[in-house]
Amino acid sequence: MDAEEFRRRGREMVDYVADYLENIEKRHVYPDVEPGYLRSLIPSEAPEEPESYEDIMKDVERVIMPGVTHWHSPNFFAYFPTGSSYPAMLADMLCGAIGCIGFSWAASPACTELETVMLDWLGKMLQLPECFIAGTSGQGGGVIQGTASEATLMALLAARCKAIRSVQSKHPEKSESDIVSKLVAYTSEQAHSSVERAALIGGVTMKKVPNDHRYSLRPDVFKQMLEEDKAGGLIPFFLCATLGTTSSCAFDPLTDLGPICNSEKMWLHVDAAYAGSAFICPEFRPLMKGIEFADSFNFNPHKWLLINFDCSAMWVRKRTDIIGAFKVEPLYLKHENQESGLVTDYRHWQIPLGRRFRSLKMWFVFRLYGTKGLQAYIRKHVALAKEFESLVRADKRFEICAEVILGLVCFRLKGTNELNQALLKRITKSREIHLVPCQLSGRFVLRFAVCARTTESHHIHQAWRHITQLTFELLQEPCH
Amino acid sequence: MDAEEFRRRGREMVDYVADYLENIEKRHVYPDVEPGYLRSLIPSEAPEEPESYEDIMKDVERVIMPGVTHWHSPNFFAYFPTGSSYPAMLADMLCGAIGCIGFSWAASPACTELETVMLDWLGKMLQLPECFIAGTSGQGGGVIQGTASEATLMALLAARCKAIRSVQSKHPEKSESDIVSKLVAYTSEQAHSSVERAALIGGVTMKKVPNDHRYSLRPDVFKQMLEEDKAGGLIPFFLCATLGTTSSCAFDPLTDLGPICNSEKMWLHVDAAYAGSAFICPEFRPLMKGIEFADSFNFNPHKWLLINFDCSAMWVRKRTDIIGAFKVEPLYLKHENQESGLVTDYRHWQIPLGRRFRSLKMWFVFRLYGTKGLQAYIRKHVALAKEFESLVRADKRFEICAEVILGLVCFRLKGTNELNQALLKRITKSREIHLVPCQLSGRFVLRFAVCARTTESHHIHQAWRHITQLTFELLQEPCH
Repeated sequence: MDAEEFRRRGREMVDYVADYLENIEKRHVYPDVEPGYLRSLIPSEAPEEPESYEDIMKDVERVIMPGVTHWHSPNFFAYFPTGSSYPAMLADMLCGAIGCIGFSWAASPACTELETVMLDWLGKMLQLPECFIAGTSGQGGGVIQGTASEATLMALLAARCKAIRSVQSKHPEKSESDIVSKLVAYTSEQAHSSVERAALIGGVTMKKVPNDHRYSLRPDVFKQMLEEDKAGGLIPFFLCATLGTTSSCAFDPLTDLGPICNSEKMWLHVDAAYAGSAFICPEFRPLMKGIEFADSFNFNPHKWLLINFDCSAMWVRKRTDIIGAFKVEPLYLKHENQESGLVTDYRHWQIPLGRRFRSLKMWFVFRLYGTKGLQAYIRKHVALAKEFESLVRADKRFEICAEVILGLVCFRLKGTNELNQALLKRITKSREIHLVPCQLSGRFVLRFAVCARTTESHHIHQAWRHITQLTFELLQEPCH
Repeated sequence: MDAEEFRRRGREMVDYVADYLENIEKRHVYPDVEPGYLRSLIPSEAPEEPESYEDIMKDVERVIMPGVTHWHSPNFFAYFPTGSSYPAMLADMLCGAIGCIGFSWAASPACTELETVMLDWLGKMLQLPECFIAGTSGQGGGVIQGTASEATLMALLAARCKAIRSVQSKHPEKSESDIVSKLVAYTSEQAHSSVERAALIGGVTMKKVPNDHRYSLRPDVFKQMLEEDKAGGLIPFFLCATLGTTSSCAFDPLTDLGPICNSEKMWLHVDAAYAGSAFICPEFRPLMKGIEFADSFNFNPHKWLLINFDCSAMWVRKRTDIIGAFKVEPLYLKHENQESGLVTDYRHWQIPLGRRFRSLKMWFVFRLYGTKGLQAYIRKHVALAKEFESLVRADKRFEICAEVILGLVCFRLKGTNELNQALLKRITKSREIHLVPCQLSGRFVLRFAVCARTTESHHIHQAWRHITQLTFELLQEPCH
């Protein structure tokens, strides 16, 4: 395909994209396919000779679309939102064309420098403490990770390295493996599964701290666990606190946990994957009170800030902590400027070596929406969640299972877990709306997350009508 | 921005992308900016109110382009190629629009299933052993990782988990940390820095095996090291062999190393990040002889197979080895079909949780080029490298430093390292072409990698004229 054909096909694709998103409501939000459906629809080997573009686009509708879960449908209320906006898509096209691999400053200075400044912009939008802003002379700064999982892992690995060095500075005779076997990381029972996974990867013990009735980590129990573990010869080194848990959007109490971590010289990582975007609004900023105690902070603009995946923003208080953990420097990656102190080589900040020019998406979105536009977007979603909450509360058959703070509503039918499982099964099967469940205090709970950019009040009402209709049918059945 | 405006701006962006790539030669391949150049060109905070799209596009030329290293310029010969093609860019637009996060089968069945089938297509293109093909009943299969670094890390972590379980099955009294402290991974001295980094992350010892005069790992020394380590109570568990090293595109002898690993029950991971794409051509397939001994194999279609970053293809012989290592399963990620055996939840195969619909790029590129088109592309690059090699060989002032097997030529001026450093400095400063160095047997060597899709014979000749001109000037100077 030459440039001329790309101009033509590109225009067609732009229209296909716009048509898809404008008409997405006409499609069932959840696909009706069985595992293995796709293999039989296409050949078992790549073609020898080139095929025509028309055939491929026909196959997009024939092969792909029937198996797509439409995350950007206004009837999608599952998981958490994933960002999507036209400005971000335009920026991604530019990112693809430039196609640089920004592992070092020299590999494409603009790619590195725009990222540093965009993380500063975003940090300032949230009013993060000064220590997280790179500026021209800060010790901290931000980086785009692919996902929150990677941010948590990088924080845990940096903390592990720091803890080993700290112990060895006092006890040079202790081996690294001996120290690692004593390290203990902590997180809430409500933390995301990726936190537990980070500890598995890092080869350290992770203990789960029980939570209170609001599903927040209990500082008193945490403190007690620390004392017991230290008395047992263990070395507490890391806490991952969550602002906005996946199950119920609960908030761990940073103002209590932060001082404990600081006085114990433990690394405090704050995972606000979903909720973090809300902190651009002054009224939600109190939810991150205590962030000044954190060593690292992460949230996903690719969730709720209209930026297409992947774009997970992470800030660290001290760049040297994260860079120092895994610096390996071969000659083919060295460049003249790297010792200047002004230069950031982001490959030291992350698991992969290569990286796309993802900050372009932030730049386009921040400028085309403006902070006010982004704030309005967050507020709209929260209002829609509150609207859904009030519909649930008005129906005595249902109960709300956790405080509705942002865009997530946890609810259930009063009754057994089986009843709620049956309801969810009907919802999934109907394919009109899409939800996923969670477990709270042993109860099977339905999660209703406001997700799509185009979700409006009437979608919320429609969804509720649909749920109550299915509930009515379910409760009619003799077995209940 | 609404759909109407996106249609307009999208068309403009398509033209901008085509214009950029068609006229890329008019730009200096390497930027002339100082560290920190960008910060002063843009405001220090995000705007409150939305800005105009025209202003942003003006800033792309004013702010971004002066700081871009143009990886797709036909005068770019640094690092290794990074893939770029119009079909891949079109697929990426579609990927952005669908915008699903394919962490599980249910999160978007098409995203998972196309990936499995595309990895089968690609595996068959390479004629990988049957054990790596998923098919409908295979135990192995493929996955798209972000980068080769992540593939190496996943392989090492899976191997670590398997080794721990194996030891514990015989000695249940041994603790995990005790076992980990005894584990040893191996790789060649010429392996990529990310291999060493994987061991740092995984918290295991990694030993570097010396190489021969062709920069291939020496099996005799490897065997000797294994015997010594076992005698010392250590547990060899992992070898990362490289097909096509970053420094000189050297090949480790799999036919010797494979049987050793198999008999020692060590995991053999084969990293062919760059060279792997060449194996779609029958004449280069002998270079991967011995792949049948591998437990996992990885190469980057995003390097040399016309697929835009990121798309790193990894195959494993046994899916259960890699999945079992880190399966953590919360309720909000469970879905009905996951126990069916037919279903792949790719989140268990990788470090991040989220993932883009990257297999669309493979599908578009394979179908629009056809296997023959891709083979022609590989052959053209290899021929261009040979052409450059013959130009170097014809000039007695220069020497070739490693056998030219694929698209990389390692060469240097006969003389001191300082002389070659001075030459590279001039090349970099001139910004007409771009190269990076490597170190081979203590010598500073220039790497000339054929990279861009649009590089033709005349670019090779032009590059050589430029290098010899700078050499002439350099050798004129009194200090040499």
